[in-house]
Amino acid sequence: MVNEPSRALRQALQDRIDNKTKPPGALGRLEEIALQVGLVQQSLNPVLNRPVMLLFAGDHGIALEGVSPYPQAVTAQMVGNFVNGGAAINVFCRQHGIAIEIVDAGVNADLSSLPILHKKIAMGTRSFLQAPAMSEEEFLKAMAAGACLVEQKYKEGSNVIGFGEMGIGNTSSAALVFSVLSGIPLDECIGRGTGLDDEGLRKKKAILHQALDFHKPDGFSPQQVLQVFGGFELVMICGAIIEAAACGMLILIDGFIVTAALVAAVAMEPAVKSHCVYTHLSDEHAHKLMLDYLGGVPLVSLNMRLGEGSGVAVTYPLVESAVLFLRDMASFEDAGVSQSE
Amino acid sequence: MVNEPSRALRQALQDRIDNKTKPPGALGRLEEIALQVGLVQQSLNPVLNRPVMLLFAGDHGIALEGVSPYPQAVTAQMVGNFVNGGAAINVFCRQHGIAIEIVDAGVNADLSSLPILHKKIAMGTRSFLQAPAMSEEEFLKAMAAGACLVEQKYKEGSNVIGFGEMGIGNTSSAALVFSVLSGIPLDECIGRGTGLDDEGLRKKKAILHQALDFHKPDGFSPQQVLQVFGGFELVMICGAIIEAAACGMLILIDGFIVTAALVAAVAMEPAVKSHCVYTHLSDEHAHKLMLDYLGGVPLVSLNMRLGEGSGVAVTYPLVESAVLFLRDMASFEDAGVSQSE
Repeated sequence: MVNEPSRALRQALQDRIDNKTKPPGALGRLEEIALQVGLVQQSLNPVLNRPVMLLFAGDHGIALEGVSPYPQAVTAQMVGNFVNGGAAINVFCRQHGIAIEIVDAGVNADLSSLPILHKKIAMGTRSFLQAPAMSEEEFLKAMAAGACLVEQKYKEGSNVIGFGEMGIGNTSSAALVFSVLSGIPLDECIGRGTGLDDEGLRKKKAILHQALDFHKPDGFSPQQVLQVFGGFELVMICGAIIEAAACGMLILIDGFIVTAALVAAVAMEPAVKSHCVYTHLSDEHAHKLMLDYLGGVPLVSLNMRLGEGSGVAVTYPLVESAVLFLRDMASFEDAGVSQSE
Repeated sequence: MVNEPSRALRQALQDRIDNKTKPPGALGRLEEIALQVGLVQQSLNPVLNRPVMLLFAGDHGIALEGVSPYPQAVTAQMVGNFVNGGAAINVFCRQHGIAIEIVDAGVNADLSSLPILHKKIAMGTRSFLQAPAMSEEEFLKAMAAGACLVEQKYKEGSNVIGFGEMGIGNTSSAALVFSVLSGIPLDECIGRGTGLDDEGLRKKKAILHQALDFHKPDGFSPQQVLQVFGGFELVMICGAIIEAAACGMLILIDGFIVTAALVAAVAMEPAVKSHCVYTHLSDEHAHKLMLDYLGGVPLVSLNMRLGEGSGVAVTYPLVESAVLFLRDMASFEDAGVSQSE
């Protein structure tokens, strides 16, 4: 069960922010984030401890139907790249001292020899053109695995977390999950993913409509939507988000897949939203629709559409800046500076 | 004399960016910055060395006419705050390992006992309601002081620089400089500064129109505009920008005052623009007009309007991310990852 943080500290936090040596409101969005982190941590002196990125990789049966310009093998190849430290997310996490853990959620390859977290549910999901992507048992196992990994990080002292994902075909899964849960027409929820051309986009739309017609998901519960259209990485992230909120952690949200997982998490536990900072607006078409649906305003938009948690990683210092000004800036009284007349 | 960087490396840089393990273009704005830094440094492996923030403080005669809700004494008080490490810019520079140097460009107080760089031109400018803000000699001295400080930092090994400013009344100065140099009507260039209310804004507009009517600056050279309406900190930043570009440094630009100084610098030396990254869109009303005038697209907009170089400092990690992915990410070949079909 996830609870809203108490608002009791709100005024005290706002006063503390307003007494810093700056014109009122002059730090803009950073002031909003400082207030939010203070409430999430229930502290006038919040601090970010042991930031961690859980990067979930999983394969999708739908990828074999031609919804991506990349072959499915890229998922496993990229896991190798993550392990060797050569991917974008490695570079950005190293830059900011964010610990990174790679999770095999269900990659269609034997990764047992790699130094990663082994939570493989299956060798990829089934294609949701012919069947639910996963069984109910697989769904529950994936939710629990995500939650369990977060609990472990929380026990190790992390109080701020982000999620990354890798899975060829997963924008298809996320588009369906979002469309069904939000009621927004499917066409509006589908984008170019890693870079489809017009013909590729047309084909992706046709395939996803076929899936929708096959399953007729009206009236599905959030759990059913994830089971039928989700991916193992997406479901694990959903479970991870709910657990992180239950632990009182600050949750950093970025792109299309992670936000689709959040939409599902919010459908199950509305209070998780209070713990989320929307770090980056993805260039993937419908991410803006997702954020509007959630009422979230992204900190930045850098036209990125890479996944991997890259949006969280590059913007982490901005969240840190918000916490640091609240902790470390002098007040007008401390500094002997006159206030406005 | 400032030259445009050679474009000879452009294709080789673009190829290097496109061969990184990510879909083409998926790092969005970071890819643009990587390309620009590569060209500025004329290198396929650019690196940011010893980032430095020069923070110029100066007082303005116009502040005594009631254009700001803060008393002039705040400029000197804030210099004390900078020295003690309690201001926002101190917090953010510490966070990112950016060296910070405080410069007394012309504060109306005796700061000789403080451990800062002493370049005081005078005890504040004159009010431009009755006279040019500074003499030609003072103007030239301020331009040279800014250039000299940058040259020193360049010789110490810095290749990336940002500028901060503190000066009660300086949005008035910047609005006039920008309006006269751009030809954009003065009313559109005037904003609320540190937080004027409607009545304060009305009064500020009336005072600045009075200054414009008094000096009739049509046909002024950029030098004359700065001499008549500028501040010592604004002029030093203009000189500093030109020298930084001449040294081949990367220049990080943020808010309203610094961008006004850049507008003047570009009027004198158009090629400085190639060296500039626009880091942050200020919440000060006309900053967007300035960036449009320069053809610059800011990396982020956090609704900040603090000055001090805070926009540069909080966004520095994004520029660093651009350089780091170019240096450190694996290529498709290195990582054995398949490219798109």
